[in-house]
Amino acid sequence: MAHAPYEHITSTSNPTIKMMKGLDRKKVRNETGLFLAEGARLVVDALKFGWTPKYILVGQDTTERSEIKELLDKCALKGARILTTSPRILSAVSRKDNAQTVIAAFEQRSQELNTIDVEDKARFIALYEVRDPGNLGTIMRTADAAGVDGVILVNQCCDPFSVESVRATMGALFSTTLVSTDFETFNAWRLSNEINMIAASVNGTLRHDEANYASKSVILMGNEQSGIPEQAENACDVLVKIPMAGAADSLNLAQATAIMTYEVWKGAGYDGANL
Amino acid sequence: MAHAPYEHITSTSNPTIKMMKGLDRKKVRNETGLFLAEGARLVVDALKFGWTPKYILVGQDTTERSEIKELLDKCALKGARILTTSPRILSAVSRKDNAQTVIAAFEQRSQELNTIDVEDKARFIALYEVRDPGNLGTIMRTADAAGVDGVILVNQCCDPFSVESVRATMGALFSTTLVSTDFETFNAWRLSNEINMIAASVNGTLRHDEANYASKSVILMGNEQSGIPEQAENACDVLVKIPMAGAADSLNLAQATAIMTYEVWKGAGYDGANL
Repeated sequence: MAHAPYEHITSTSNPTIKMMKGLDRKKVRNETGLFLAEGARLVVDALKFGWTPKYILVGQDTTERSEIKELLDKCALKGARILTTSPRILSAVSRKDNAQTVIAAFEQRSQELNTIDVEDKARFIALYEVRDPGNLGTIMRTADAAGVDGVILVNQCCDPFSVESVRATMGALFSTTLVSTDFETFNAWRLSNEINMIAASVNGTLRHDEANYASKSVILMGNEQSGIPEQAENACDVLVKIPMAGAADSLNLAQATAIMTYEVWKGAGYDGANL
Repeated sequence: MAHAPYEHITSTSNPTIKMMKGLDRKKVRNETGLFLAEGARLVVDALKFGWTPKYILVGQDTTERSEIKELLDKCALKGARILTTSPRILSAVSRKDNAQTVIAAFEQRSQELNTIDVEDKARFIALYEVRDPGNLGTIMRTADAAGVDGVILVNQCCDPFSVESVRATMGALFSTTLVSTDFETFNAWRLSNEINMIAASVNGTLRHDEANYASKSVILMGNEQSGIPEQAENACDVLVKIPMAGAADSLNLAQATAIMTYEVWKGAGYDGANL
């Protein structure tokens, strides 16, 4: 295969570099509709799930490695612009001293609720105004591991396309169905699809492992500080409580979500598990 | 009560400030035996569990708030040195723009295995060469929430007293029994105490929720990259596997540990749970 036409960039004032560097800011991500993913492995994951980077910034020396060259050519064929550059410019874009030698910019994607295929035993995670991008990314990774059918961001959440969130997903961003919506729309959707809504809450009256997760289920997890507002809790079919014996603080949101997610999956019989 | 004798510090070249600033480095933590905890709430938690700060650095304006004054006086009575200072110096020590207005330095503590009281149904988490301080801190928080009897750091782990780890514990550092040891000593201890050792591993043959956790148990969790070495796996009573359906990466270590910890606790009948 002929070598893809790489462009070489030597200055941080190059407009594409400036734009990529800006993608750590939500404003620039919104304006461009793009986000960054760092590392060749994430690009491999992305391709596997049908995502093609729009730009790949790559260390010039790295392009000589055959598996990287192959990856770049594959992306170029699908329309990606390949930009070779120096470690200094990679560091400037990633804002880290030891940057990855491959940094890709992708177009953001999210789905609409009504395009989701709700099968029997479907399992969803809904996050009510989640604030911490590390939590969000970690939850997406867990959602992927547990074969969850979609992660639904309810009302104003942190940005799933921030660098910190993308990093924490470890590639799961590319394989997870992601929806952003408001609570009313979400609740109407789950009602019309007969999806059982179970919230983990300090007001829970049933232990988290005693609820019935056998049918279509969505677990609703609250904001890190304020949890789930009363009106949303009232809309739930069941409120469950994860037992705590602790003296210090409660569970972190991502930890609580992992525990809930595996209970739901157990309730569904670990269908499709790679055991 | 008379006002405690606060010292006022105006320069980052003050030796105590230089030392506290250095506590983000393991070398300085080792030399001084100290570590930092940020925020008044952590100091309140610490006192509750019998820890007294050696130094408290506090924003001068903050000392006028009555609950802060009360906290400082309580610490001073127990021998803490109270240093008032400016936001600029607080930021220099915490290396953050918006620093907490209370930063305390405590003496590090850890226990020896043979001082642990192993009761019936005791539950432990052992981490084999855990590398990420955020994971370690999060696991300590979960251990606290689940009333785990001790967290055992096996072989060379990351430092539980790093700023990142302490922050992730959300105070659980002060309430959790912590031990550092090598694998042989750990394994001899758990054998002599008849503690069932269950590892979560890709080589597991039993599903994680099908093992018997009714007796005294320790779950052994592996390093983020390399898991648990063969020799340590061979020493286990059972290897279990958490089901995965995922296409991208596996579960994050802290997430897997949370799922395991709650299975163990369920096996023990959620004794002592605050339901």
